[in-house]
Amino acid sequence: MLLHPNDSIAVIFCAQRTGSDEEAYQSAAAEMSALAAQQPGYLGQDHARSADGLGITVSYWRDDASAKAWRNHPDHALIREQGRGKWYSEYSLHVARVERGYDWQK
Amino acid sequence: MLLHPNDSIAVIFCAQRTGSDEEAYQSAAAEMSALAAQQPGYLGQDHARSADGLGITVSYWRDDASAKAWRNHPDHALIREQGRGKWYSEYSLHVARVERGYDWQK
Repeated sequence: MLLHPNDSIAVIFCAQRTGSDEEAYQSAAAEMSALAAQQPGYLGQDHARSADGLGITVSYWRDDASAKAWRNHPDHALIREQGRGKWYSEYSLHVARVERGYDWQK
Repeated sequence: MLLHPNDSIAVIFCAQRTGSDEEAYQSAAAEMSALAAQQPGYLGQDHARSADGLGITVSYWRDDASAKAWRNHPDHALIREQGRGKWYSEYSLHVARVERGYDWQK
């Protein structure tokens, strides 16, 4: 986990997995994560997923244009369709601008 | 998971658990979650935690004053000290203002 600067964009994706098609999901998730990291303006991401299939991914972007470009990336759009078709039962997505941040290590 | 309005405040807390003292941690986490939900301006929260102890909690607030009031709540401050002392090895916290959001259900 990294601390990101003020005015960066946080894309907060919260999704409930259906539980089906786990292998293809994991493969696509890894591919999307690697592809996102290659995009201009990508700053980093954090991901957690509970045993019940509720997952949260927060990706951080230098600016809103970078976040939107990733949303519109054709490979990402294609995977999103698969997500709605097979992998998720519901999700929410919030795009938010960082106003302050802190981090701490033991 | 809920969709929250534009201009609401998302508090994104990403933390790595040490793994120790799990029972007391779970108890305190449940207590804090319930107490947060009683605070003025609280809109909701989402939480996921992976098997390796990496957890993300996103709480949403009507405005920045509500988010700050919760940060400064004495019971919350006390628990935060315990978190640093026993439960977490590192964390990051970003406070961000929602600019847009979407949700979807199958």
